[in-house]
Amino acid sequence: MLGVCYYPEHWDETRWETDARRMRELGISFVRIGEFAWSRLEPRRGEFDFAWLDRAMDILHAAGLKIVLGTPTATPPKWLVDEHPDIIPYDEQGRPRGFGSRRHYTFSSETWWTESARIVEIVAERYGHHPGLVGWQTDNEYGCHDTTVSWGPEDLKGFKSWLRLRYQSTDQLNEAWGSVFWSMELKSFDEVALPNLTVTEPNPATRLDFWRFHSDQVAAYDKMQCEIIRKHSPERWITHNFMGFVSDFDHFKVGDNLDLASWDSYPIGFVEKFPFSEVERNRWAETSHPDIAPYHHDLYRAVGKGRFWVMEQQPGPVNWAPWNPVPKPGMVRLWTWEALAHGADVVSYFRWRQATFAQEQMHAGLNLAGLDELSPGGLEAQRVAGELAALGPLPVTQQASVALVFDYQSYWTTMIQPQGKDFRYEELCFRWYEGLRRLGLDVDFVRPGASLDGYALVVVPCMTEVTEEARAALEAATGTVLIGARTGSRDRNFVIPSNLPPGPLGYATGNRVIQVSTLRPGLSDKVSGAIAGAGIRWRETLEASGEVLARFHNGDPALTKKGNILYLACWADEALLGSLLSLAAEKAKLETLPVPDYIRIRRRGDLTFAFNYGTENWALPAGSKPVLGGGVLEPQAVAVWRH
Amino acid sequence: MLGVCYYPEHWDETRWETDARRMRELGISFVRIGEFAWSRLEPRRGEFDFAWLDRAMDILHAAGLKIVLGTPTATPPKWLVDEHPDIIPYDEQGRPRGFGSRRHYTFSSETWWTESARIVEIVAERYGHHPGLVGWQTDNEYGCHDTTVSWGPEDLKGFKSWLRLRYQSTDQLNEAWGSVFWSMELKSFDEVALPNLTVTEPNPATRLDFWRFHSDQVAAYDKMQCEIIRKHSPERWITHNFMGFVSDFDHFKVGDNLDLASWDSYPIGFVEKFPFSEVERNRWAETSHPDIAPYHHDLYRAVGKGRFWVMEQQPGPVNWAPWNPVPKPGMVRLWTWEALAHGADVVSYFRWRQATFAQEQMHAGLNLAGLDELSPGGLEAQRVAGELAALGPLPVTQQASVALVFDYQSYWTTMIQPQGKDFRYEELCFRWYEGLRRLGLDVDFVRPGASLDGYALVVVPCMTEVTEEARAALEAATGTVLIGARTGSRDRNFVIPSNLPPGPLGYATGNRVIQVSTLRPGLSDKVSGAIAGAGIRWRETLEASGEVLARFHNGDPALTKKGNILYLACWADEALLGSLLSLAAEKAKLETLPVPDYIRIRRRGDLTFAFNYGTENWALPAGSKPVLGGGVLEPQAVAVWRH
Amino acid sequence: MLGVCYYPEHWDETRWETDARRMRELGISFVRIGEFAWSRLEPRRGEFDFAWLDRAMDILHAAGLKIVLGTPTATPPKWLVDEHPDIIPYDEQGRPRGFGSRRHYTFSSETWWTESARIVEIVAERYGHHPGLVGWQTDNEYGCHDTTVSWGPEDLKGFKSWLRLRYQSTDQLNEAWGSVFWSMELKSFDEVALPNLTVTEPNPATRLDFWRFHSDQVAAYDKMQCEIIRKHSPERWITHNFMGFVSDFDHFKVGDNLDLASWDSYPIGFVEKFPFSEVERNRWAETSHPDIAPYHHDLYRAVGKGRFWVMEQQPGPVNWAPWNPVPKPGMVRLWTWEALAHGADVVSYFRWRQATFAQEQMHAGLNLAGLDELSPGGLEAQRVAGELAALGPLPVTQQASVALVFDYQSYWTTMIQPQGKDFRYEELCFRWYEGLRRLGLDVDFVRPGASLDGYALVVVPCMTEVTEEARAALEAATGTVLIGARTGSRDRNFVIPSNLPPGPLGYATGNRVIQVSTLRPGLSDKVSGAIAGAGIRWRETLEASGEVLARFHNGDPALTKKGNILYLACWADEALLGSLLSLAAEKAKLETLPVPDYIRIRRRGDLTFAFNYGTENWALPAGSKPVLGGGVLEPQAVAVWRH
Repeated sequence: MLGVCYYPEHWDETRWETDARRMRELGISFVRIGEFAWSRLEPRRGEFDFAWLDRAMDILHAAGLKIVLGTPTATPPKWLVDEHPDIIPYDEQGRPRGFGSRRHYTFSSETWWTESARIVEIVAERYGHHPGLVGWQTDNEYGCHDTTVSWGPEDLKGFKSWLRLRYQSTDQLNEAWGSVFWSMELKSFDEVALPNLTVTEPNPATRLDFWRFHSDQVAAYDKMQCEIIRKHSPERWITHNFMGFVSDFDHFKVGDNLDLASWDSYPIGFVEKFPFSEVERNRWAETSHPDIAPYHHDLYRAVGKGRFWVMEQQPGPVNWAPWNPVPKPGMVRLWTWEALAHGADVVSYFRWRQATFAQEQMHAGLNLAGLDELSPGGLEAQRVAGELAALGPLPVTQQASVALVFDYQSYWTTMIQPQGKDFRYEELCFRWYEGLRRLGLDVDFVRPGASLDGYALVVVPCMTEVTEEARAALEAATGTVLIGARTGSRDRNFVIPSNLPPGPLGYATGNRVIQVSTLRPGLSDKVSGAIAGAGIRWRETLEASGEVLARFHNGDPALTKKGNILYLACWADEALLGSLLSLAAEKAKLETLPVPDYIRIRRRGDLTFAFNYGTENWALPAGSKPVLGGGVLEPQAVAVWRH
Repeated sequence: MLGVCYYPEHWDETRWETDARRMRELGISFVRIGEFAWSRLEPRRGEFDFAWLDRAMDILHAAGLKIVLGTPTATPPKWLVDEHPDIIPYDEQGRPRGFGSRRHYTFSSETWWTESARIVEIVAERYGHHPGLVGWQTDNEYGCHDTTVSWGPEDLKGFKSWLRLRYQSTDQLNEAWGSVFWSMELKSFDEVALPNLTVTEPNPATRLDFWRFHSDQVAAYDKMQCEIIRKHSPERWITHNFMGFVSDFDHFKVGDNLDLASWDSYPIGFVEKFPFSEVERNRWAETSHPDIAPYHHDLYRAVGKGRFWVMEQQPGPVNWAPWNPVPKPGMVRLWTWEALAHGADVVSYFRWRQATFAQEQMHAGLNLAGLDELSPGGLEAQRVAGELAALGPLPVTQQASVALVFDYQSYWTTMIQPQGKDFRYEELCFRWYEGLRRLGLDVDFVRPGASLDGYALVVVPCMTEVTEEARAALEAATGTVLIGARTGSRDRNFVIPSNLPPGPLGYATGNRVIQVSTLRPGLSDKVSGAIAGAGIRWRETLEASGEVLARFHNGDPALTKKGNILYLACWADEALLGSLLSLAAEKAKLETLPVPDYIRIRRRGDLTFAFNYGTENWALPAGSKPVLGGGVLEPQAVAVWRH
Repeated sequence: MLGVCYYPEHWDETRWETDARRMRELGISFVRIGEFAWSRLEPRRGEFDFAWLDRAMDILHAAGLKIVLGTPTATPPKWLVDEHPDIIPYDEQGRPRGFGSRRHYTFSSETWWTESARIVEIVAERYGHHPGLVGWQTDNEYGCHDTTVSWGPEDLKGFKSWLRLRYQSTDQLNEAWGSVFWSMELKSFDEVALPNLTVTEPNPATRLDFWRFHSDQVAAYDKMQCEIIRKHSPERWITHNFMGFVSDFDHFKVGDNLDLASWDSYPIGFVEKFPFSEVERNRWAETSHPDIAPYHHDLYRAVGKGRFWVMEQQPGPVNWAPWNPVPKPGMVRLWTWEALAHGADVVSYFRWRQATFAQEQMHAGLNLAGLDELSPGGLEAQRVAGELAALGPLPVTQQASVALVFDYQSYWTTMIQPQGKDFRYEELCFRWYEGLRRLGLDVDFVRPGASLDGYALVVVPCMTEVTEEARAALEAATGTVLIGARTGSRDRNFVIPSNLPPGPLGYATGNRVIQVSTLRPGLSDKVSGAIAGAGIRWRETLEASGEVLARFHNGDPALTKKGNILYLACWADEALLGSLLSLAAEKAKLETLPVPDYIRIRRRGDLTFAFNYGTENWALPAGSKPVLGGGVLEPQAVAVWRH
């Protein structure tokens, strides 16, 4: 199903009916509105104006559109910020981040919680039973623009309270943090300081707790909104629209509050954000890399416990990346089908019509700037709508054969203490995911500690802290389990395990990490044996009691095996990673379908989808009978067949 | 004629007579003094010491030198800053920019206007009728060191007042800015905030107004000084010495206050400042790029309504660039002749003698550091003086055949919203200028909206807002008009025109811009047809109703023609730009004289000048009879002949 | 002799005896403790707990270890910082540098002096006569993490006082600084401002005085600690552990307070800190560059007036560089022997056991993290201990044949006014040192103005201010004296000498510097004659009255000779530097032993040591009879023979 994001407040009221009608004509079923409209709903404290939104919702509903309403908390109005400056967040340099764009609040401000609860309650109460309303979106893109963590006085206050609860006494805090090092011991929680602007690096344990504190706050804040909404609008579902490549808070915990997850898919902008090489950035500039959107689809399907939407789908060039190329013809259609292939319920485009003013005026819409005229992207959406109608309802998404265990805390831990400047957790997971999909495999993301039942292959690119639940789940897994370096390298207090890494997995893997080398770009260590390639960036010296399947140039173990558990002692370069994942798939007895780097395959129910991100044709597997597309998959084309 | 900048206050009084005598012996006619001397003129509030300046001016005058006196407002003394800290400017990071160098004031401070008026009046009154005085310089290098825009409390106060005048009501302001987007609506002018340090980018319309506000202030501040000077010194002309590659305020508006423009020509330092490639930077390191000084000569001739000086000419290595090479032998002479060829009345060297102390002690002068001994640059100046005397008075500068419409606001607009990170307005204009001069053409800079009568060719590299006057002037032009991409892309409120870009020029060009792609370095789109090369950086999708002269690889229009108006739909790479300008010159029926990249030609009256920036000889056009130099133009040489 | 750094407070008391015993078993004689333990010694103001340290020292002593006790001033506890926030330093951006790591104090705070004196007195009094105590360490790594210079209110206060003493009157200050330039004149010392955050660069003379002020403070602060210690512990020696590549204060002046110098040798981390090319960084990533440790050994031998220790020797990978590779096998042993070859009395490893918590948990120790089990580095230390015992006492270190005059102020001066962005004084000295050692020569560092008696060759890479003492020492030198460019370019007030550079050495060298060109990377000027290669970065135009041994491409003098003094007029590229030093050695009649870039030689008494940093074997000079190692020096091996 298709949807669209719409801002009635941006356009003259006389245009609303036409807009609604044209949406329906295009084949759109859902419309999301309202998430930035606070200053129109409450222009001054206590002065409300709902008339316009009443009319807008009535018109949309009358046209047959199903409405998703956003709470407007991402954009507190100026009068509120002036009344309560404690709402304002601070950057890591200690500067207030002022009014004038969006997300100018810190989750630590108590005033902010009060004010958020107030406006959410008012909106939920008024519209909770509107006949056009089918669901809610809380806030907008938590964490976007680096807004999870804030470094101001309210944050310090909140952090102290959080620490008091976590540690009860400063003795326990000092013990947990190892404060004796450099005389950092505290005698009272009042002495706690923000872990920024220190002379040299602050205690990594403090920084991790500061990150956890903020992550916890996001989940709790979202829960507060959800509870209010559920009270006043019990029949409607709730989602939040997550962002791409934002890992500053634990999305799984926010997902626990929600009925379904959604995310905002800007595949081309993300090419500039992810640490690709310049060669890759040029190559994928006008299509995006073929795993960027899928990676997030699979991640947010997990966050949504199986249900997810794309709430905002890029429909053409955007405005916020360093460069913003027009997507190649066909890509808007391709991305839409791809989201559906990965299990999306709805793909909703951002936005109906390009704005002519303010920050996002260079962001394409389904209609040209200010006009009632479909843009190139709008025409592609129209085509998908027709194809979707022809194909009929899509089957249910099944469990994949491969699980990738994804752990937000490992991102925080390795950002806090990279040890090698280019150790980036997100990049690592992305590359493993890419490697699996190059083998034609479907992948599920799994939360640490969740059951791994039914997976033929489980991969853990890195999991710095292995909790008791995570250990148990991994040891209970019956498939092949592949564990990456740096796993189990810290306990919950950011302390090296007393049996050395991989700590709780020492027994299961048969390994002990004696020392770690981080290698600057240009340095590598050759690996040979059952797999071949090179270790780069991170390379462990292992004492292995199990089988050694591959070794570094000096004979040190590079890949070990004990039972069904493989352990890799380095960051793998491209060759080594390919070799490793092939071996793992083989051990897991998985049937693979290796594809060129510009082709991707994905199954949903009895349908197989193929997508071409490249510049060359690709022949479908022999015998495929396409229900969409032809036997030859042209550049930017989509094919679907029953398997 | 030649001049020099002199600081009597830097040297023992006993040396002044010798200095004045040696200036005259060298062939110098003009001497600029006084622009940094506030602390010597008024050591403490209300305590004045004019005796030294009286003596210095008398000595210079007695030696036959004509004096240009600077108002000392670029360097408020410490006692004044301590008395009135509100004078201090703030950087975009919100930090005060303290005392200890120069230009430590914000144009927004009311105290600063009062104090400036006071000192200017005192100085103008005392020296306004001095027999040696021929002219005034206001302040020094407005905008240098990023001092046009300031981000402090005084600036916010001034901005609010400026907005009140511009918009009268916040309803109108909200409408103009599109504040409804992201709930940025204001209910009172007191709610206006500085558009910096926001969470993500601030409203571009707000930023543009903030820039306009500061630009207006520079012009008004300068006007205030001019009015005081004219009251007390009605017979003398007034100038200001502008800087190179500073476009933060509208120089044309300041020029309106002045009798003539002047600028400070540091061709070598500017090589490091302009976004050249490393290859170009190395190539031109010791000569400068052959268009840097000419570009500014032609610009400031326009700002000065036909009259300009070089107030500060680099006479050797300077001190302020990342690297400061000694210019190749001959370059000081070449630059001097070149300025005259472009119409300068006077070329004045900075400075008479290298200082031995303080910030600029590594900046060469005509004399060695602290000594009465000509430097290598001093010897070249001496040679020019002799040649000038031999050649006799130079003819009057005539209107060129080509007009380049230069628009400061387009610089601000594209800096605020680059959309592609490397879209730099100054670079664009510079490359078009370079391309025209590679064809041997003379170029006039023209202010947007000014008459284009008499120009065979008019080029508009980019003009984001096309005012009614600018539209009328372009449509009235009878020559060939070449318009670059992004022109007419915004209205005065930073809003996309309702007929899409190029907005007011939609009819005249026959075009409508449907979407825009910005391309990262490495990406390009091939263009072929009447011109050939590639589009880079910025590429529009055009609907064209006129003739299409060239197309992109997919057939989209790249160059269109309707009547006498050409429109280019991209940023042109070097090949495309050369091809384009040749075509335009041909259509304009201009006779061209293509030159190698190290040779430049310029005409003044019946004289043609040639300059060699390279390492190879160049033969003068057949039949040229040089009145200066020979038939073969050697590296770093100058030739002049009558055409 | 070997030592180790130990933190009893990091480990359970029950482990101390085992630790002490195992230290002795390894062959360790010295143990440094206590330098970060303030919060354990004084948990709250006035509440002391010495019991644990009493016990620890008794146990170490009982095991036969000699104790070095550090004063704990590098880590003031939180209660003290909260009580006296004026202790906190400020960065150059004007931000306080908060509690939470170490060195969070400014030398300018009077409170800090009082508190430091208090804790040093208490500790010195209690332990000054402990039978296990042999020496003291003041504080820890002065200047590390950029903590010499601070930019806060206390610093401004202190700076004003320092200026009052230096200049007595503002007239003299204004004269010295050339404040007349840009109206920077001050009428009272109260008007002095910090020389940061100015609009453009501040007066270099002010900045130099600000740097001198801080450098003086470090020496005075250290002296204060030494005087207190000597009062209470008169029989023990005192040292300070200096850092590598920290030149913000004059180490010679601190050395005047001490009985011996020591330094902290992290050869691999420093590879990332020094401005090597990427090729060099990759090449030496796992061994370090073969001159990094030796350069500091020779420097600190001079600072310690002939006596020095390595107080902290890297025993494996560290944690603080951008990448932290494991050193190649053999390197820990090699570095240890190398330090001894250069005259170290003791090499003390940092640290006994890898910490499991806090900032340095990824820093290797002699034992694995948290365990009683030797790490790979620990095993190498054990091997050295055995070899040392076998070889017996090492001979006394003799004076070298070559003196390198090293001047901290030249570092400050050229940082303040690089003129060419890549003019780095430390790099220059390092490259000259490297060039000398590539000829197999031993080098002594010498303080400016110190006697140069007995040196066959004296090199002065650069000495911006040549004091009367320095001039006299150079002119009195009987060996060959080689002086580099930029020497004598400023007087004590940062003013260009009235006879132009090299100022006081104008007569002795026969030279006068007319102008200076700084060359961007990619530009160079060919030199030929008695030496060959190219000048890069800095190139002077010289008037030479002596002999010209080599010339630039245009005939300007590049190398001159007058009497025994050679003067080089540029920064030499690698070829030119090699050629120059060979010529100088030849003129000095020194016997050289050119070695490949991965081999180094060093003599101590009658022993010659050789070290292999490379990947290829090297044959010892014919006839060498190794007392350690074989006739073929393998990669990472050490050889010692009697000459």
